[in-house]
Amino acid sequence: MREGAEFDTIRALMARWGDLAVDIGDDAAVLAPPADGTRVVSVDACVEDVHFRRSWISAREVGVRAAVAALSDLAAMGARAESVLIAFVIPEAWREQLTDVADGMGAVIREAGARIVGGNLSRGTVFSITTTVIGRARRVVPRSGARVGDLVVVTGLLGGPGAAIQAWEAGETPAAWSRGRFAAPAPRWAEGEALAAAGATAMIDISDGLSGDARHLEAASGVRLVLDAARIPVGPDIAPVVAVQSGEEYELLACMPASEYERLADGWATVSAVPLTVVGVVRAGHEEATSASTPGPRGFDHFASPKTVR
Amino acid sequence: MREGAEFDTIRALMARWGDLAVDIGDDAAVLAPPADGTRVVSVDACVEDVHFRRSWISAREVGVRAAVAALSDLAAMGARAESVLIAFVIPEAWREQLTDVADGMGAVIREAGARIVGGNLSRGTVFSITTTVIGRARRVVPRSGARVGDLVVVTGLLGGPGAAIQAWEAGETPAAWSRGRFAAPAPRWAEGEALAAAGATAMIDISDGLSGDARHLEAASGVRLVLDAARIPVGPDIAPVVAVQSGEEYELLACMPASEYERLADGWATVSAVPLTVVGVVRAGHEEATSASTPGPRGFDHFASPKTVR
Repeated sequence: MREGAEFDTIRALMARWGDLAVDIGDDAAVLAPPADGTRVVSVDACVEDVHFRRSWISAREVGVRAAVAALSDLAAMGARAESVLIAFVIPEAWREQLTDVADGMGAVIREAGARIVGGNLSRGTVFSITTTVIGRARRVVPRSGARVGDLVVVTGLLGGPGAAIQAWEAGETPAAWSRGRFAAPAPRWAEGEALAAAGATAMIDISDGLSGDARHLEAASGVRLVLDAARIPVGPDIAPVVAVQSGEEYELLACMPASEYERLADGWATVSAVPLTVVGVVRAGHEEATSASTPGPRGFDHFASPKTVR
Repeated sequence: MREGAEFDTIRALMARWGDLAVDIGDDAAVLAPPADGTRVVSVDACVEDVHFRRSWISAREVGVRAAVAALSDLAAMGARAESVLIAFVIPEAWREQLTDVADGMGAVIREAGARIVGGNLSRGTVFSITTTVIGRARRVVPRSGARVGDLVVVTGLLGGPGAAIQAWEAGETPAAWSRGRFAAPAPRWAEGEALAAAGATAMIDISDGLSGDARHLEAASGVRLVLDAARIPVGPDIAPVVAVQSGEEYELLACMPASEYERLADGWATVSAVPLTVVGVVRAGHEEATSASTPGPRGFDHFASPKTVR
């Protein structure tokens, strides 16, 4: 490895990651075929002052969030990550903090049972992490398979990230639970795999908020999700409207026949410690009723208005 | 698909890409197993004012360069791309130009015979493209396999990008050939596949410059590359020292036994229109002689000093 700052940085990252990072150092990484199931791949970016502010969370938490956000896209397909590639853009001010970022990412990737197989380092004036995740699904669950009559279920308790952002933006300290949901969310891969195995017909993570992502699923499936606002599982002391709109939420929204749901619910305690809640039902008629089909205002659009900074 | 600026942008990109972009719209993309060979994956970032300046090249050329840089990492493994994921960070000022960027990327990806299977859009203040490429290699060629006695070969004519950057930085207009090599480089996947099939023992692309990347290969293989400066294939009117140092060069440097090289050279005209040149030989003794083993000053370190902007 050539001397120089880039390679010092790579060496420092490799030292933090140990045997988590394998066979890095070639132009590309070799992927073994999946032992079973289907290969799936996704990419997600985490940009300073768009997806987080450094004053809100620690460097380690920045790493945790970036890894969880990327892994969550696989969980939403019923897939589990096997290989991760990490592309950093690193301003000078971030150089010293990079090992903490690496530790946060490493902890999440290790817990997922995945490996870091490649990446890229670039200088730049704005810190960002673009994470590619490659995994396998025994059964792929798209957004597009919801059927009329399916139940609509959601994992976990919602609204924490939204409440935390609201507090930070008002100059207040968020409640510990809400802060934790923003700073160190848990990806729901076990839940996603269980939902897939149980026969979920459509699934999505609600990183744009329950309301917004319900619309994505509706559009992909050509159906209407009729959600019951009173049944939305809300975190402690969080207003339902915040829970419905909260972005940066890595819970899963899925559709499945009632019979399959009943069977899954019976054994859910062996899958996960977070609740699985029925929040609505799938109805026909996407086109004519979209605007009235989900409660509360729209989830926000992280392009027109950035995901976490407004 | 939900309304809003993000989705308008996605729709515009999809319209440009047509059938080049397949099955986009889920949380992750499904990858079919390779028809033959081994799966390889790589990621590369292209950041404004680090890897290019907007005043130097058109938006379409920005897209071409970003795609070629990413595909080149696969070519350097003897692999050909099948699937591409593109993560854009887009400042407002770039929104209108994004279709031109997409056209440039699309042209390269289409010519490579690959498809766009996913991506990510994020707002941000600095434009960047992070490209993940997934492909297959019939025979993977790492950096680490060079053997004492192998010949060292390089594709193409070197120095164009370096000469173009020197001219731009001096406020001059680069020569057309040099500008073209920076603005619209050609990835060498056919050449990479042919070198792999012919028995190359080690290979790397020289995106950090011949001198710098020769050191990478030396370190990975534990050997010394003794290069003959007089044999370096230099582009028109380009000083040898520029050719040796020029970064942003997407030619391939490979090692292979002389007998295999002879067979490959006999049929090279059917593989490629660019020359394949023997520039040196592999010797033993990496540790004691690295600093003297490659001609000219070191290739540059695109972290300590950015790849194209100094």
